[in-house]
Amino acid sequence: MTTTDTSYLPGGVFAAALTPLLADLSVDTEKYIDHCRRLLTSGCDGLAVMGTTGEANSFTVAERMAALEALVAAGIPPRRLLVGTGVCAFPDTVTLTRHALSLEVGGVLLLPPFYYKNVSDDGVFAALAAVIDRVDEPRLQVYLYHFPQLSAVPFGPELVGRLLKAFPGQLAGMKDSGGDWEHMLTIQTNFPDLRVFAGTERFLNAILGIGGAGCISATTNIGARLAAQVYANPGQDAVAIQARLIKLRNTVERYPMIPALKQIMFQRTSAAGWLNLRPPHVPLLAERARQLIVDLDGIGFPEGYGD
Amino acid sequence: MTTTDTSYLPGGVFAAALTPLLADLSVDTEKYIDHCRRLLTSGCDGLAVMGTTGEANSFTVAERMAALEALVAAGIPPRRLLVGTGVCAFPDTVTLTRHALSLEVGGVLLLPPFYYKNVSDDGVFAALAAVIDRVDEPRLQVYLYHFPQLSAVPFGPELVGRLLKAFPGQLAGMKDSGGDWEHMLTIQTNFPDLRVFAGTERFLNAILGIGGAGCISATTNIGARLAAQVYANPGQDAVAIQARLIKLRNTVERYPMIPALKQIMFQRTSAAGWLNLRPPHVPLLAERARQLIVDLDGIGFPEGYGD
Repeated sequence: MTTTDTSYLPGGVFAAALTPLLADLSVDTEKYIDHCRRLLTSGCDGLAVMGTTGEANSFTVAERMAALEALVAAGIPPRRLLVGTGVCAFPDTVTLTRHALSLEVGGVLLLPPFYYKNVSDDGVFAALAAVIDRVDEPRLQVYLYHFPQLSAVPFGPELVGRLLKAFPGQLAGMKDSGGDWEHMLTIQTNFPDLRVFAGTERFLNAILGIGGAGCISATTNIGARLAAQVYANPGQDAVAIQARLIKLRNTVERYPMIPALKQIMFQRTSAAGWLNLRPPHVPLLAERARQLIVDLDGIGFPEGYGD
Repeated sequence: MTTTDTSYLPGGVFAAALTPLLADLSVDTEKYIDHCRRLLTSGCDGLAVMGTTGEANSFTVAERMAALEALVAAGIPPRRLLVGTGVCAFPDTVTLTRHALSLEVGGVLLLPPFYYKNVSDDGVFAALAAVIDRVDEPRLQVYLYHFPQLSAVPFGPELVGRLLKAFPGQLAGMKDSGGDWEHMLTIQTNFPDLRVFAGTERFLNAILGIGGAGCISATTNIGARLAAQVYANPGQDAVAIQARLIKLRNTVERYPMIPALKQIMFQRTSAAGWLNLRPPHVPLLAERARQLIVDLDGIGFPEGYGD
């Protein structure tokens, strides 16, 4: 990997890719490759794989590495991949990060260790430093995964500043999934060189207006084409399209996100395997699944969404 | 392993054993064995190893298995061990549980998968069932680890009832670390055959009064002798001793629990390695460490606590 610009993760619209499973709950590699290919030809500039939406924390280290290898071996361009590698045990995070780097991925997405709560910024800093120091690769491009609703361990501006000062060449950006616009604004404004991706396309137009990198979203598994239009032509011209994206997001958010998205993929592909989920996720109950489709029809999805 | 009573976990006072580390943050096996031996000869009936206090979620699957093997190889009686094996990815939970069973431990302590939040009881049930079904061992003795402050995924009475009905021979008990007496009371009263351990010695006398199994506590790394007196002679006679245990607990709880306990072990053994912690835990700042010792002196610990 060279250090020219083209070796790095692009900006734009990223899907937090779903991970299709077989009936025994192992990764359906063939369907995973197909899904990722389709996303990249229908509006996505890149893919966040093995993140929250990809059920990554329900997979073992070996399963995560095998799934990533399969994508790259199938020709998915590795620099378009932002790979979730942050887990609770830092030696596992080091293993996953080194592995992703060996495949020349565009970046890694690091959750903080998320079991222990109410830990200090010193502790989270130490956890990130332990990983970055041990990986010991100048080409490492870390994206902090700010998602306090699930990790319970936030990356606030002070901590981000400390990390950026300590690892200026390796701290590349943030996926801000907190849903709090003020936080994204603060981070992007205080650290203009940091590449901030909004964790939902709800804020895509807004974050592009302040120099943000794009969005990485669960719902772009289904709505990437519209999001791509916002990314191609942001600002005043994108307001109407952005409004439709928000309508789609609001509709899906009434349901548990991962089961709902897998239900939608099942509806669209008739492949029953899309309903397989690793616990603690379970498929939508039949009545809720029907209601979801009714709700999506009500907003003209998929036809009106170019999907 | 036979199915006679002596093959099962005893009741009583358990320490949630600390895990001593070397400077490189690997497990200090020698000190770990010494610490566990000392706990068993100074008031503990058993040990919960690789739980929250043992920093287990900061270790890899391989590290956890190696540490447990070292204890058993050193002669720590395996049936006195309740081994934390519940992690986010159920195949890892299956691996750790089978491994612990192969060493003939008294029981395993299962956290629910703890990354995803606001999951349904159906989802948590599915996660536990996936593990119990795949381990597929009649001698499996599962203790549910109820610790909503850290797992964010509770084991409420309805879910416990469903699990008990589905796995009557294998669901053995609960470690209730929620700190909510009403919850312990509800679980023990509704399911009298379940062996409920209070997650702190604060409730030791109380839980023994309703037929509970004992306590499993972080602070019994330092205060097990007193707790053993309560267990040996509970009820009215234990009120004064119980009050001192509560005073000790209140004192330590003013500090981050794991760093505080390692600080105390350092004070008592002069072994600097006790100050090693895996991130996101960090040692107490010097001023806080001094204050902790002053606070403990103020309540007459260790002398007045028989420790």
